[in-house]
Amino acid sequence: MEILVKENSYKIDIDYKSDDKLKDFLRGRSESKFLIITDENVFSLYEDRIKSIMKGLEYFIFKITPGEESKSIENFVEINKFLVENNFNRGDAIIAFGGGVVGDLGGYVAASYLRGIDFLAVPTTLLSMIDSSVGGKNGINFMNLKNQVGSFYFPKYVHIDYSFLETLDERNINNGLAEIFKYSVLKDRELFEYLKSADDLDYEMIIYKSLNIKLDFVRDDERDRGKRQKLNLGHTIGHGIESLSNYQLNHGESIGIGTIYMARAAYKLGLAEDDFYKDLIEAFENHNLPISYDFDTDEILEVLKHDKKIKNNRINVIIPTKIGEVMSKKIDFDELREIIELGKNN
Amino acid sequence: MEILVKENSYKIDIDYKSDDKLKDFLRGRSESKFLIITDENVFSLYEDRIKSIMKGLEYFIFKITPGEESKSIENFVEINKFLVENNFNRGDAIIAFGGGVVGDLGGYVAASYLRGIDFLAVPTTLLSMIDSSVGGKNGINFMNLKNQVGSFYFPKYVHIDYSFLETLDERNINNGLAEIFKYSVLKDRELFEYLKSADDLDYEMIIYKSLNIKLDFVRDDERDRGKRQKLNLGHTIGHGIESLSNYQLNHGESIGIGTIYMARAAYKLGLAEDDFYKDLIEAFENHNLPISYDFDTDEILEVLKHDKKIKNNRINVIIPTKIGEVMSKKIDFDELREIIELGKNN
Repeated sequence: MEILVKENSYKIDIDYKSDDKLKDFLRGRSESKFLIITDENVFSLYEDRIKSIMKGLEYFIFKITPGEESKSIENFVEINKFLVENNFNRGDAIIAFGGGVVGDLGGYVAASYLRGIDFLAVPTTLLSMIDSSVGGKNGINFMNLKNQVGSFYFPKYVHIDYSFLETLDERNINNGLAEIFKYSVLKDRELFEYLKSADDLDYEMIIYKSLNIKLDFVRDDERDRGKRQKLNLGHTIGHGIESLSNYQLNHGESIGIGTIYMARAAYKLGLAEDDFYKDLIEAFENHNLPISYDFDTDEILEVLKHDKKIKNNRINVIIPTKIGEVMSKKIDFDELREIIELGKNN
Repeated sequence: MEILVKENSYKIDIDYKSDDKLKDFLRGRSESKFLIITDENVFSLYEDRIKSIMKGLEYFIFKITPGEESKSIENFVEINKFLVENNFNRGDAIIAFGGGVVGDLGGYVAASYLRGIDFLAVPTTLLSMIDSSVGGKNGINFMNLKNQVGSFYFPKYVHIDYSFLETLDERNINNGLAEIFKYSVLKDRELFEYLKSADDLDYEMIIYKSLNIKLDFVRDDERDRGKRQKLNLGHTIGHGIESLSNYQLNHGESIGIGTIYMARAAYKLGLAEDDFYKDLIEAFENHNLPISYDFDTDEILEVLKHDKKIKNNRINVIIPTKIGEVMSKKIDFDELREIIELGKNN
C-alpha cells in the first residue's frame, strides 16, 4: 500500500520484504551521497541487508548506542561534524534506518545541517512506523526533558517494510501497539475491537489505518496548535511516567497507562459515556501491556511543568469521552492534579 | 512605513524613535514571558531604553559577547538551558535585540526550543535591518563554517527603528550599505545612482526599498532552491573572503568586494553589458568601502568546497550583467577558479 502525503509532498510505502522499492528510490538520486544513521542493534541485525540496498551508491554509516540517551545534543553535534568532514552538501541526504530515536535524531540533524538537507526514513520498529513517519516532528532530549529541542521537518520518502518487525520482541511490538490503541480510542472503535482480541496482527492494515488517522489530525495543523493536539491523548501523564521511570517504561507502555488514567478520570468526572476504561484495561491485559504505574502526584506535576503544551499556566489535556471520540480541555494545574489523582486510583 | 509580509503573516515597522509601537505590540501579549537576547555593547548603549520598553512585563536578558564567535553551538546550548531553567513555554517569546549575530542566534534558538516559540526581532544595525528581517534564515557557525547549522523560521514581528543607527560608526553603517549596493545591482539602477553619490542617507527609504527587493526574491522560494539564490550575488567569493580574513573584514565589506570581482569577471568573460564594475568601484570609494582583498585562489577554493549552494559538485553563481540585472549560472570548480582569477586581477 502507499500513502501520498500531499500537503508535504512525499510518499509512504507500506510493504513486506520490499528492498527493491527502496533501491529504486535511491538509484533515482544516485548523484547524492547518503548518511545512514542507525543504532548498533539494528546494524548488527541488518548489516547485510543495508549493504545490499546501498550497493553502488556513495554512503556512510553513523552508528549510535541504542536507547533514548542517544537523542542528545552531543550526538547532534557529532553527526553535524561528520557531515562537514565528509563534505555533505545540499544535494545529499540523510537516511534514518531504525526506530524512533534514530528517526528523531536523524530528522533534527537533516532539518538543521545547511538549514535542511533531504531526509529519508526507514523505520524498523512498529512505533516508528506508525508514529514518526507522519507529522514531521523531530528532536532531541535536553536537560532530561523529552524532545525539548527540535523542529518540524518532513521526509522526502518513508519506506515502511514490516518484515523488519520480525526481529522485534513482544515488548518492542507492544511499544507500538499501545500507540495504535491510542489511535483507535481517538477515532476508530472498529480498530479497537479488532486490536482487543487479535492474535496475529495484520500489520499492513493497522499501519495503514494508524497513519491515516494521524494524517487526519495533523492536516491543517502542522505546528501543533489546534486539532493535532488530540494526538496527545495519554501523552501528558504518559510523558511524566516515562520520565519518572527513568525510561524503564518505554514510550508505548507509558502513554498506554496515561490513556487508561485519562479514561478512568473522565468516567469519574462524568465526562465519559461509560466506564470503557475497563475495556481498555482488558485489551491491554490481553496483550501483556502494563495497566498501571505507581508515582507521587507532586513529583509528576513537577515534571509536567515543562510540558510543551503549557501556555500561560494552562495545559491542554485530551479527554476520551468514548472509544472513538475525545475532547480537548484547557485546565490549570489544580485541575490537572485532580485528574491525575482520579486517574491513578482504582 | 510598514511592510506586511503576507506569505509568513508578520509585520515589519520602519520608523524613527518609535519605542511606543514596540511597547504596544508587547503589551498586546502581556501574558508572555520574554527573553531578550542582546550583546554587551548594545546592552550598555540601550539598557535604559530596553528597561523602559519592557516595563511592567516579565522578562529576562541574555547577554552575549559581541562578534561572530558568539554564533556558536555553545551559546545555542546555553540559551536553551536558560529557557528551561526559567520555565519558558510555548506561549513565551524571544526578542533578538541587536545586530545580525544576535538575530541569527536568537532566531535559531526560537526555531528549536520546544520545536519553535515566537520570535520577535529588533534589529539595531543597518545590515540586520535590511537583511535578516526578511527571509527567515537563521543559524550558527560550526567548525569555522558560517551558518552551517540553522533553520528557516519567521518572526512574528520586526521592529525597525533607525534611530538605533545613530550609535553606529561609519564602518558598521558601511557593513549594511554594501548589502544595499548589492540590492541595487540586483534590481534597481535608480537606487544605485542615489547611493553612489548620497551623502546623508535617507534610511527610511533605503531600508524600505531594500526589504521590498529582498521580499521579491524570497517570495515563492523560501527554502532557497531557485530565484532566491540571486540574493547571493557577491556572496560566494564574499563568504570565502570573510572566512580567509578571519572575520577581520566584516560581512558587508566582504560581499562588496565579492560583487566587484563578479562584475569584473563578467565583463572579462563578455557576460556583462559594459565595464560597470568601474562604477561600482567608484561608488564604493565614495563611501570608504574596500574594493579589493588579496588572497590565494587555492585557499579560497578550499573554503568554498563547503558552500551551501553546491549540489553534485556544481555551484550556482550569480553574475551581474548590468546594474539592475543578474543571471544565475551553474558551474563546476574549474570555471569557478577562472572567475575568481579574472575577478581579483585588475
